[in-house]
Amino acid sequence: MEYLAKLPRVFCPESVVVVGASTNPDKLGYHVMKSLVKGGYPGRIFPVNPRAAKIWDLPAFASVDEVPGKVDLAIVVVPAQAVLGVVEECHRKGVQGVILITAGFREIEDPAGSTLQEQLRQMASGWSLPIIGPNTFGFVNLKVSLNASFTSEFSLLPQGGIALVSQSGGFCHLSGFRAIEENVGFSKVVGLGNRCNIDFPDILPYLADDPDTRVIALYIEGMDEPRRLVEVAKQMMGRKPIVAYKAGRGQSGNSASKFHTGSLAGRYEIYRGAFRQGGILEVGQTEELLDVAKALDCLPKLRGNRVAVLSSQAGPGMIACDVCESNGLQLVGFSPATQQRINELLPPLAIRTNPVDMGPAWYNPGAIVGIMEAVLDDPNVDGVIFLAMYASANIALAGKMREYFEGREPLSKPLVACFSAPPEIWWEDIRAMDRKKGVVVLPTPERAAKTMAALWRASLSGG
Amino acid sequence: MEYLAKLPRVFCPESVVVVGASTNPDKLGYHVMKSLVKGGYPGRIFPVNPRAAKIWDLPAFASVDEVPGKVDLAIVVVPAQAVLGVVEECHRKGVQGVILITAGFREIEDPAGSTLQEQLRQMASGWSLPIIGPNTFGFVNLKVSLNASFTSEFSLLPQGGIALVSQSGGFCHLSGFRAIEENVGFSKVVGLGNRCNIDFPDILPYLADDPDTRVIALYIEGMDEPRRLVEVAKQMMGRKPIVAYKAGRGQSGNSASKFHTGSLAGRYEIYRGAFRQGGILEVGQTEELLDVAKALDCLPKLRGNRVAVLSSQAGPGMIACDVCESNGLQLVGFSPATQQRINELLPPLAIRTNPVDMGPAWYNPGAIVGIMEAVLDDPNVDGVIFLAMYASANIALAGKMREYFEGREPLSKPLVACFSAPPEIWWEDIRAMDRKKGVVVLPTPERAAKTMAALWRASLSGG
Repeated sequence: MEYLAKLPRVFCPESVVVVGASTNPDKLGYHVMKSLVKGGYPGRIFPVNPRAAKIWDLPAFASVDEVPGKVDLAIVVVPAQAVLGVVEECHRKGVQGVILITAGFREIEDPAGSTLQEQLRQMASGWSLPIIGPNTFGFVNLKVSLNASFTSEFSLLPQGGIALVSQSGGFCHLSGFRAIEENVGFSKVVGLGNRCNIDFPDILPYLADDPDTRVIALYIEGMDEPRRLVEVAKQMMGRKPIVAYKAGRGQSGNSASKFHTGSLAGRYEIYRGAFRQGGILEVGQTEELLDVAKALDCLPKLRGNRVAVLSSQAGPGMIACDVCESNGLQLVGFSPATQQRINELLPPLAIRTNPVDMGPAWYNPGAIVGIMEAVLDDPNVDGVIFLAMYASANIALAGKMREYFEGREPLSKPLVACFSAPPEIWWEDIRAMDRKKGVVVLPTPERAAKTMAALWRASLSGG
Repeated sequence: MEYLAKLPRVFCPESVVVVGASTNPDKLGYHVMKSLVKGGYPGRIFPVNPRAAKIWDLPAFASVDEVPGKVDLAIVVVPAQAVLGVVEECHRKGVQGVILITAGFREIEDPAGSTLQEQLRQMASGWSLPIIGPNTFGFVNLKVSLNASFTSEFSLLPQGGIALVSQSGGFCHLSGFRAIEENVGFSKVVGLGNRCNIDFPDILPYLADDPDTRVIALYIEGMDEPRRLVEVAKQMMGRKPIVAYKAGRGQSGNSASKFHTGSLAGRYEIYRGAFRQGGILEVGQTEELLDVAKALDCLPKLRGNRVAVLSSQAGPGMIACDVCESNGLQLVGFSPATQQRINELLPPLAIRTNPVDMGPAWYNPGAIVGIMEAVLDDPNVDGVIFLAMYASANIALAGKMREYFEGREPLSKPLVACFSAPPEIWWEDIRAMDRKKGVVVLPTPERAAKTMAALWRASLSGG
C-alpha cells in the first residue's frame, strides 16, 4: 500500500514539525520539544504555536503552512477537536507522516471519539498519509537520535537491534526503564496507540526491511483483524524473529483493552493460534519479552537443545537445571576430551559433570575460563549457561572473563550468563561483556535458563 | 535439645574468635575479618593465627586457648584436616557455637569427607555444641551489625523482618545482591551448608522466637528428613509465615544436590506435600521468594481475594489483571460511594471501574491520590495493586504519593505498588514509601500481582 512506502522517511525524517509545541512544562507539547532537542536530533525542528515566539530556543511558527521548506514528520499534540484541521494542514504541507499523540478518539466512552477517528482514517486514506496513533506517546529511532515522544528519558535507551512495537505507551515506559537498567538495546520503540492506519501488520514489513532491526518485539492487547498479523508474519518467517507478549487474556483485561486503545482483547486462544501459525514466539512476562528479544538480537542461533550449565556456585546451577529440564532443554554429557579437561582443572571436590559446580576453582579465574572454553568447544554442547555470584574471594573473575571474550572471535553458539554482584562490583566488566561476541547477561539463573529455552523454541519455529 | 538453646547467644555473641584469620586477601580468613571489622560489629573480635601479630589492626593469637576472656562464637576457616582439633579447642574455651566455613566434608566425592563430618557431629553432640556448616559462607545478623560471613558486602543488606535460611551460599549471594537493589529487608541471612547439627528444622524454633524476625524464607535443596521440617512447621503455624523455594526438582538437580551439601534433593512431590502439610508457602523463583517474603514482612494481612487494580496507564493494568485472574484473585466491583468518588475525579475518557485506568488524571496527582484513597476505604476491596509508570508530565506523582503516605495512619489492607521510572527520577520518593505504612514496591506489574496472589494463598494456609 502506497502510504506504507512512506514509513522509512517517517522514521528517518530530515525535518520535524511539532504542532502544539509549548513552553509550559505541564503540557505534552513542551515535553515533545524537550525530547527532540535534548535527544540530539540532528534534523530541523519547527515548533508550531500561534502564541509563542520561541520554544526551547527555536523560532516558533503560527501554523504548519508558515513553516519554511519541506517537512517530513509532524508530531501533533493539539486538542482532539483541532486534529482534523491540523492533519489537513500537514497534508497540504507535504508531510510524509504524522505522530498523533492527542487522545480522545476511539478509546473514549463517548461514541463521538470513534466517529472522529473514522473521519481521520478516511482523510488519511485519501491522502495516503500514515498516522501513528492517535493516543500514543510517539516513537524513538535511536540510530538517528530521533526521540519523537513526550518522554525525553527514552533517549537513555541503549542502542541495539530490537524494534519494540506496543499498543500501550505504559508498557513502553515500563519495559524501557527496565531495559536501561538491564542493558537491552533497541533500534526503535514505537507506540501504536489507537492504530488509525498503522497497526501491527502495517508496520511489520517496514521493520522486516529496516537494516537497524534484527528482532521485532510486540506487546499486543487486541486487534480488529488478528488474521492479518498471521499473514504478514508468515511472509516474514525465517527473515527476522518476532516475539510477542499478549495482554488482556482474562475477562477484565478484555473490557480494559476496548477502553484503552479501542479494540477488544479478544479470546486469548485465537491469538495463541495466530502466533503459532505466524511463527511468532510467545512470551508471558514483561521481563521475558526483553530477555528473549535481547538474546535473539545478540546471540548466534541455538542449533540443538543440548545445553551445559556451568556455575561458580552449585545452588544457582541447580536452579538453572530445574528450569532447563522443565522447558525442553537437555543437560547433555560432555565429550571425553571436554570431561578430561574439566577434570584437570577442577579437583574432585564437587560435581564435575554437567551441571558443573566450579566452586572449588573459586580462587582461580583462569581455571573457570578454561572450563568454559572447553565446554564451548565441545561438539556435544549447543549452548552454555554460565552463572557466577560474586563472593569476596572471586573478585577477579569478571575481569578475567571480560579479558577472555575481548581477546577471542565471536562465539558460534550462544552463551547466556548471569552475574550477580553488589553495587559497583563487577559492573563495568559485566557491561563490557554483555551483548557482544555471542554473550548476553541476564539477572537471575531462572531468567537465563528460560531465555535459553526460548532460543530453542525460536529455532524450532524457524525464527 | 540443649544445644539449640545456645542459638540466641550464637547469633548475638559478645565476642567472636576467627580461627584461620589471615592477612592475605586470597584467603577466606581475610574476608571474614573484613566482614566483622568493616561491618561494624561492636563486640570483641579475636583473630587466631599462629603466624601473625596483627590482623585488620587487631592483635592476633596463636590459638583459641590463648584468647583472653570469654568467647561466644567461633568462626572457623582452617583446612578440613585441622577442624576437629580446632572445634575441640573451641569446646574447651566454652564457645557457645561454631560457624564452620571450611569445605571438604560430606559434599566431596571421597568418602573420607562423610566420615569426617560424622566424627564432627558426634563430638559436637557430646559437647552440646551447635555447628553451622561445614561448607557455609556463615551468617549475618543485621540487627546487631554482625557480619559473620566471608562476604563483607552483606553488610549492605537493608534491615527488615525476613530471616533467609539457605542450603546454598550461592543462593544467598544471588538473592542478597538483588535484595540490595530491590530494597528487601532482612533480620538474618544464614547459610546452613552441610548441616552438621543445624538443619532447617533445628533453626526454625529459634527464628520463631526471634523478635527481629517476622517472616522466614527458606531455600531448600535436599534434606535427610523432610518429615522433621513438617513437624516443626506445624508447631509454628499461625505464628510466623514460612515461604520456601525448593531447588533440585529434576534429575540433574538431584545428583547436583548430593554433591553440593551432602543430601539428595529427593522427589519434588515429597517436598510439595511436606510444604502443604506444614503450612509452608511454596514459591518457584528467586525473585518470587524475595517479593513474597517482603510483602509478608511489611503488609497487613490480605483478608479476602477481592482486589482492585489502579493503574496510571492502562497496559500495565491489564497485565496485572491477567495475573490476578489466573491466580485466584477477583477484580471486584466498587461500592457505589467509591464509584461515585472515582467518577468525580476521572473524566469519562477511560475505564473507571476496576481495573481503573487513571490515565486521564495524569497531570493531576491529587486526583490519583484521591482515587487511591477512595478505593482503600472501600469495604468491598481487600487489597490494592497500584501501578505507575513515569512519563514526563506525571513527574510530581511519586512525591505526592509519598506525602500522602507520610501523613496518614498505616493501611489496614495491603497495597502492592509498582513504580517504574528512569534512573534518578522518583527514586527517593519510591524508597521513602517502600516497606512502610502497609505499602511495598515491586519492579513489575506481574510481580506485584503475583505477590498479591501469594498473600492470598498465605491467608488460606493460615500463614
